[in-house]
Amino acid sequence: MLKPEILDPQGQAVQRALPRLGFEGISDVRQGKRFELEVDGPVDEAALARINDLAESFLANTVIEDFTVRVEEVAEAAK
Amino acid sequence: MLKPEILDPQGQAVQRALPRLGFEGISDVRQGKRFELEVDGPVDEAALARINDLAESFLANTVIEDFTVRVEEVAEAAK
Repeated sequence: MLKPEILDPQGQAVQRALPRLGFEGISDVRQGKRFELEVDGPVDEAALARINDLAESFLANTVIEDFTVRVEEVAEAAK
Repeated sequence: MLKPEILDPQGQAVQRALPRLGFEGISDVRQGKRFELEVDGPVDEAALARINDLAESFLANTVIEDFTVRVEEVAEAAK
């Protein structure tokens, strides 16, 4: 996501359009990117550290963007 | 996120670049969008239903995209 101090024109455009479309009560909208990575093997501390590095150095532009890494189990078994 | 059956060239480009950049063991990358909405008032069932509608009709292109709605507490108090 863009850092809070960085202007987000896309999010603002969405927010301004909402009342016109009948959606009230949304005070702010920010738009950002999301990456889903599928990891071979166990997602242990080392893998997470590697993925944090990867996000920081390659996926996010840390000058203007914040990022968080979140682990989600794949629902289907036997993957 | 793009539905699993929809080709994601951006994600594929990222995935193919990773070994070159020294990151091994990532078998798949998908790229998608993320919106953070700030809601006035309580995020109850009704508000969530409204936001689901909003996401379905306006934020996501449900022909090619899936979406999930997730509630996150704002960390800072007194908002």
